[in-house]
Amino acid sequence: MLTYSLEKRGSTPLYHYLYECIKSDILSGTLVAGEKLPSKRSFAQHLRVSVMTVENAYAQLVAEGYIRPVEKSGYYVNPIETMPTSGAQLPELTETGRAQAFFLDFKTNHICKENFPHATLSRLMREALSEKTGLLDPLQYNGLAELRHAIASYLLAFRGIRVSPEQIVIGAGTELLYTLIIQLLGRDKIYAVEDPGFHKIARIYELNGLRFRYIDVDRAGLSVDLLRKEETDVIHISPTHHYPTGIVMPIRRRQELLKWASEKSGRYIIEDDYDSEFRFSGHPIPPMLNIDTEGKVIYMNTFSKTIAPAVRISYMILPRELLARYRETMGFYSCTVSGFDQYMLAKFIDGGYFERHINRMKNLYRIKRDTVIDAIDKSPFADRVKIMEEHAGLHFLMRIQTKLDDALLVRLAEKEGLRLSFLSEYMHAPTPEDAHVMVVNYSGIDTARLPEAMRRLASILDGSDDTKSENL
Amino acid sequence: MLTYSLEKRGSTPLYHYLYECIKSDILSGTLVAGEKLPSKRSFAQHLRVSVMTVENAYAQLVAEGYIRPVEKSGYYVNPIETMPTSGAQLPELTETGRAQAFFLDFKTNHICKENFPHATLSRLMREALSEKTGLLDPLQYNGLAELRHAIASYLLAFRGIRVSPEQIVIGAGTELLYTLIIQLLGRDKIYAVEDPGFHKIARIYELNGLRFRYIDVDRAGLSVDLLRKEETDVIHISPTHHYPTGIVMPIRRRQELLKWASEKSGRYIIEDDYDSEFRFSGHPIPPMLNIDTEGKVIYMNTFSKTIAPAVRISYMILPRELLARYRETMGFYSCTVSGFDQYMLAKFIDGGYFERHINRMKNLYRIKRDTVIDAIDKSPFADRVKIMEEHAGLHFLMRIQTKLDDALLVRLAEKEGLRLSFLSEYMHAPTPEDAHVMVVNYSGIDTARLPEAMRRLASILDGSDDTKSENL
Repeated sequence: MLTYSLEKRGSTPLYHYLYECIKSDILSGTLVAGEKLPSKRSFAQHLRVSVMTVENAYAQLVAEGYIRPVEKSGYYVNPIETMPTSGAQLPELTETGRAQAFFLDFKTNHICKENFPHATLSRLMREALSEKTGLLDPLQYNGLAELRHAIASYLLAFRGIRVSPEQIVIGAGTELLYTLIIQLLGRDKIYAVEDPGFHKIARIYELNGLRFRYIDVDRAGLSVDLLRKEETDVIHISPTHHYPTGIVMPIRRRQELLKWASEKSGRYIIEDDYDSEFRFSGHPIPPMLNIDTEGKVIYMNTFSKTIAPAVRISYMILPRELLARYRETMGFYSCTVSGFDQYMLAKFIDGGYFERHINRMKNLYRIKRDTVIDAIDKSPFADRVKIMEEHAGLHFLMRIQTKLDDALLVRLAEKEGLRLSFLSEYMHAPTPEDAHVMVVNYSGIDTARLPEAMRRLASILDGSDDTKSENL
Repeated sequence: MLTYSLEKRGSTPLYHYLYECIKSDILSGTLVAGEKLPSKRSFAQHLRVSVMTVENAYAQLVAEGYIRPVEKSGYYVNPIETMPTSGAQLPELTETGRAQAFFLDFKTNHICKENFPHATLSRLMREALSEKTGLLDPLQYNGLAELRHAIASYLLAFRGIRVSPEQIVIGAGTELLYTLIIQLLGRDKIYAVEDPGFHKIARIYELNGLRFRYIDVDRAGLSVDLLRKEETDVIHISPTHHYPTGIVMPIRRRQELLKWASEKSGRYIIEDDYDSEFRFSGHPIPPMLNIDTEGKVIYMNTFSKTIAPAVRISYMILPRELLARYRETMGFYSCTVSGFDQYMLAKFIDGGYFERHINRMKNLYRIKRDTVIDAIDKSPFADRVKIMEEHAGLHFLMRIQTKLDDALLVRLAEKEGLRLSFLSEYMHAPTPEDAHVMVVNYSGIDTARLPEAMRRLASILDGSDDTKSENL
């Protein structure tokens, strides 16, 4: 009769250990198809365990299909291919190294952490977790009504944007919202990608097998002539603050783009208002959505910039026609943001905390920007640089007089612990005129390190261009 | 000279009101292209405001492209198309009515709310929000290392699944993970949808313009012969607990499917282990992932079932080859789950709370299931029904002897406040043999209402089949 030494089982329950032993023998071929297993009673006596133990082990083996009961006869092994019982221990993968720790990082969009509203959010989350049992239910496709109402009220009060909460769809980040928009607008469309611009969206189009074209951006934004020439249908733009040039699209170009969109059904404008809250002089620029009378603009915005990148809450505002289509074809999707997070954010907005938080952050960022510009002005290379588009958003441009090419500058800076990025990285086919324009993301940097960082940058720019470029 | 009555401005800042007035005149055509605006000083005197007010208003108009400064001359109106200044007030949309409130809902997968760990989660979230400043940084594509480690340790300790934390990708729900898998595996694949099965996934394939086939499920699961015949590449299955039939796929069929996958590169098995934690007799069924030696299984699971649907945290485990491809082509994506939520869940798992929560819920659901089955056994229609597949998961099947067709039963029940669903709804082309099999989702129901619900169901089944079906 089958014999197993049950002493080695450690803390595994007896029946489960027995099940593992028999399973292993079946998978290794020791027990072959058609073989009859001992009767429960005699097997139990033999192993000195209870009949219940054998019964439970057999039941598990039956449930998984290793053996079958035959009425009035007993249990038989099923025909099964032999294989190693448990996968060989997998070699440990090493985690990909964390991003190199830079002395100062001018590329990554970190936020300024000094002002994060820990206490308020903790309290609101506690309320969400304890008070709202409705939050335990499945979520609607478009998100929590409380949050959509809070956003609509906020947009009306502080941005002059009038939308119904119904038009708002909440999603876990703008990248996700793009993939939903693609599904909504359809695969027959040709998408336009701004050049220079936010090229991640081109990678999303690529991954989804969509047709897209790079369209040049001039001083006023996307060129309408090129849009027509390339027969594009859907454009993705940030008219309030173009990324990375920082250009504000003038009203005339906005009108031209809306006219272009209205000329043909199926043409749409995705307006990504990603950092419109941070305008340091004057008022926020009104979005194109406000002058869209034909339902051509899909407006989107995110709380990643205003609260923290780790807060994955974005939203889009759909024109009515698209909203109806969304409900019909995509209403089965669950909303991707936790109900608790949505409730917390709704309270954060409704309680006025969000507006106060933005104002505080705007002041902080203004000071930070001034400090960075001041450090540049005082640097040894002050007369070799020109600062542009610094009145809005969390980055500005700095044109540098240098013979070093952008890629070389990035490498030299990296050796000095500085992370830089250049306009040319955001271009599909950069021309020589686009070189030497640094995109300065300052929101997350430690300003105490600026003087030292400026010294290091100066040493790079001062080095003999010719020798350095030859050595690398 | 231009004159505006600035008294009506309410609480709008003076400069902003002036900007609105001029903008409105430009958009309405009152001020035409080329027209020169009054000089700042004389306009300020005329309106009895400070020069700074006019300067700020002009600056905003310049920023938005309505006017342009001409050196040593003044400000001129740009050529702009006239249009209504602000969109007419939008008609309010009415929120789509909430789902009808049913007396008892046997269809929706609610959770049992009695045991939700409010206090523990609140405490852990407070820790996340206050202690971990690293959580304010942008998220990696695959999620927080802490959570991936917690999941890997949990899977090893409680499920016997050995994976590296590196292989885990966190995402905001399984629907989202499907769309990522589609992008990863490519658009040239043919996808198989189980019939009966989880047909939402077919709608996702449809929205993404992918080719897919419905493949029949027999008593052991997806038919390998049909898979070969239909030339499919990727299958999505729940071998541990098929939805909705509840069938456990026997080891033999698992081996056949793995063999099928290994025969051709590009073939993959998506194993959705959505409610494997809730097995009421014996041990959890080991996943196919454990016997996959060729890297063909993409395992996925969710915390929506085990904690709450509103907790949008799911994960997938990628085989090494796909992991490398994912990093290369899709590593630019941000993870879609809030860093705070990930940290909270990591602590919940590491602290042993998750395991204890599952055990508590399993007991609760077992009692709930027994109560439902007991109520059915005691009902007047006990001898007309047969209960099937009730040892696992949060639903079971009930075959009803009736002449009423499924759609009619659903309508009649709805009138009585009962929400029912039938196996036939989960089938692409149901046959008469598939009729009258109710899918009983019991996890969220109020058991106190069961006796009354059984009376109502009995009255429907007792009613003369012929007259009722004629009347509707």
